[in-house]
Amino acid sequence: MSTGTQQTAGFFRGRTIGELGEQLRTEELRCVDLVEAALTAIDALDGEVNAFVTVDAAGARRAAEKADAELADGLDRGPLHGIPVAVKDIIDVAGARTTMGSAHFAENVSTSDAACVQRLREAGAVIIGKTTTHEFAFGPTGDRAHNGASRNPHDTGRMSGGSSGGSGAAVAAGMVPLALGTDTGGSVRIPASLCGVAGFKPAHGAVPTDGVFPLSRTLDHIGVLAGTASDCRLGYRVLAGLRPMPRRERGSEVDIGWIPPELLHPTDARVAELAREALRADGLDVREVRPRGLDGMVRAFGAIQFSEAHAVHAERVADSPELFTDDVLAILRLAGETAGWQYVRALTERDDWRAAVSDLLAEVELLAMPTTCVVAPEVDQREVDVNGAPTSVRSPLIGLTRPWNLAGAPAVSVPAGTVDGLPVGLQLVGRPGQEDLLFAVAERVSR
Amino acid sequence: MSTGTQQTAGFFRGRTIGELGEQLRTEELRCVDLVEAALTAIDALDGEVNAFVTVDAAGARRAAEKADAELADGLDRGPLHGIPVAVKDIIDVAGARTTMGSAHFAENVSTSDAACVQRLREAGAVIIGKTTTHEFAFGPTGDRAHNGASRNPHDTGRMSGGSSGGSGAAVAAGMVPLALGTDTGGSVRIPASLCGVAGFKPAHGAVPTDGVFPLSRTLDHIGVLAGTASDCRLGYRVLAGLRPMPRRERGSEVDIGWIPPELLHPTDARVAELAREALRADGLDVREVRPRGLDGMVRAFGAIQFSEAHAVHAERVADSPELFTDDVLAILRLAGETAGWQYVRALTERDDWRAAVSDLLAEVELLAMPTTCVVAPEVDQREVDVNGAPTSVRSPLIGLTRPWNLAGAPAVSVPAGTVDGLPVGLQLVGRPGQEDLLFAVAERVSR
Repeated sequence: MSTGTQQTAGFFRGRTIGELGEQLRTEELRCVDLVEAALTAIDALDGEVNAFVTVDAAGARRAAEKADAELADGLDRGPLHGIPVAVKDIIDVAGARTTMGSAHFAENVSTSDAACVQRLREAGAVIIGKTTTHEFAFGPTGDRAHNGASRNPHDTGRMSGGSSGGSGAAVAAGMVPLALGTDTGGSVRIPASLCGVAGFKPAHGAVPTDGVFPLSRTLDHIGVLAGTASDCRLGYRVLAGLRPMPRRERGSEVDIGWIPPELLHPTDARVAELAREALRADGLDVREVRPRGLDGMVRAFGAIQFSEAHAVHAERVADSPELFTDDVLAILRLAGETAGWQYVRALTERDDWRAAVSDLLAEVELLAMPTTCVVAPEVDQREVDVNGAPTSVRSPLIGLTRPWNLAGAPAVSVPAGTVDGLPVGLQLVGRPGQEDLLFAVAERVSR
Repeated sequence: MSTGTQQTAGFFRGRTIGELGEQLRTEELRCVDLVEAALTAIDALDGEVNAFVTVDAAGARRAAEKADAELADGLDRGPLHGIPVAVKDIIDVAGARTTMGSAHFAENVSTSDAACVQRLREAGAVIIGKTTTHEFAFGPTGDRAHNGASRNPHDTGRMSGGSSGGSGAAVAAGMVPLALGTDTGGSVRIPASLCGVAGFKPAHGAVPTDGVFPLSRTLDHIGVLAGTASDCRLGYRVLAGLRPMPRRERGSEVDIGWIPPELLHPTDARVAELAREALRADGLDVREVRPRGLDGMVRAFGAIQFSEAHAVHAERVADSPELFTDDVLAILRLAGETAGWQYVRALTERDDWRAAVSDLLAEVELLAMPTTCVVAPEVDQREVDVNGAPTSVRSPLIGLTRPWNLAGAPAVSVPAGTVDGLPVGLQLVGRPGQEDLLFAVAERVSR
């Protein structure tokens, strides 16, 4: 039982970027109004939610004034023009602190924008501030950070999920309509699922990672969180440097493969049923598919993430361990014990897994399963019950998302309903290059 | 002081493949004569040299008869037609035992030819047998193998060097004019240097490794040993699937960079001086160059070779350690201790080293240095003296060769004279794609 409370929603809850854009262009709203709405919501709600590490009110106001002036002058930068965006605090924003959620970087100020932030600015987006991250993005709970836990707006006694917990909470609370996250094993999709919003992880390499602090270089992805899959799509196309395109519409003949989540990880039966029901209710044709090579996939993900993460932090772990939160220090130390020969084998097992996923995605157009195995646990909870069996909190959060980081396939989480009053996410995985189909189906099935 | 003796030379000592080919085509000699000459030399010398694990007299005779018939019918397969070749015993030859020098594979019979052996056969070469390898090719001394040490024909109390020790000894003893080896840290060039013959390691990837037992997949190269650099070139062009070409001649204006060997590893001053003198005597323009990033190179080579080698052998080390020779078991166990994060960093350091070598090879056309830091130690010797300082036998053998495996650059070792009556090798390293210049200079300076 959580002891938290449900928050009143901020301005952006239930408002899509498309609607806001229309209102900006009919002068019903100005960009500066959107910034004030964001700042008001943050003022009202963030004391309890803790989605933000840093809010740049002055910078956001200046950017919004410029965006308004441009629109007035007839310069329209597209769907994100004037839209407030929050940025995860491991991503460089020039002149702002980038703390990585860690005491190691508590005073670190970025001198330039990350490539993804540059692209947002060029598209007219207004950066509101930096969102809470699980320390160094190395954890799916969002409650181990130098500036404290981010909390779930549906119940602030519950975790937001992580590592992009502040971004998920900020969108869910209606503080911003769009936020940047990063996703190495599920860190965009997990908070999206737990907070009841949409979250998209692109295909590997589709969005440049320059200016983003690494967790595991070959598994890291930049992603977006928003109220709807369509809004994620608008953000994604800007991040990937693609031109706006008309949305692709598809009938119900899409061929979807359901991966029974139990194959990947024990899953709350109610969560699994709800996610599957979201597809059925829409009349979509779903058949069960079973990927091969799951043991190798799990081994490979672990060996690669652990080896690459420790490579980033070896000196900090050796020289100033006291600056880490206990949980992150413990997992980094464990990560350092992975052997080189295990990493070498993992590279082959990753190739095998990619081939297995590629074969599955030749059989069906999309894969579907829940995003997480459980709904949001309580903040600081370290053990959860899955169908009566206790398990460490980490694995039921990442068990269904990490396979798609290893495969490098695009994946989206959309709200599928609630269990015990807490959001459940449906995850869809698509073919690289066919993101529009993925978004079209995600938009149809989300509720 | 060695207690061994010098062997009488076999038929092929001092005879080039070019000369033999001429005699075959003027019918002064037949292919079957060359096979008999090889078998006679092996019979006479191999009891003491131990260059061969398996000799396939019947198969070689059949192949030679076929080669003679083809020549008589006007089918000339090129420079290697009818030439006897020995093959290192980690390379598959269909129907022959391939022992890897190990009790683990003592009874292993290959069912097909390795890709490099196929290419040799298509070029008309005659496979004589399989040559002694340091167990699993994991050692530069050639004296740890299930079938015993291969010995140096210049003094059979001395090691041949390794791991392609049998191939070096077979060529040096005049048993065959050409032999296949593999080279992961110097395993072709080291026995060439210690035995006083020529050895060539191609650019990484130039010769397919299919059918060759791996030591360290990203560092493994197939190479050739012969009496002269020109003969190595003939063998290399067949292995790489290149068409025979007229030899490139160059004047003395080649721009050669001398890398002071002490930068890479302490080196016997007499060896260094003799190698440098071989260039000077030919009037070649040599200037000193200094590569950057040597510490990273040494770390990267170690982490990559160790991690990849243990990945090949982990189950054997765990389940049947007693089948290894003690030295190879010890180094495989040590190799298993390399951490995954060190391998990850090594991949970056390898990129840095490749960039450093590429920059050097933009300044000069070739790099030169000795091949090994010392002349051949005695068989079973595990510590050597370098300029008065004792050191483990391994590092002065591989210290000057391993950088070029990590860089992936083509490298050749040619005889440069003798110190204490034992051969010294000069090593030349070239630009990938400019192997003809490398061979032309190697041929000029060798003596």
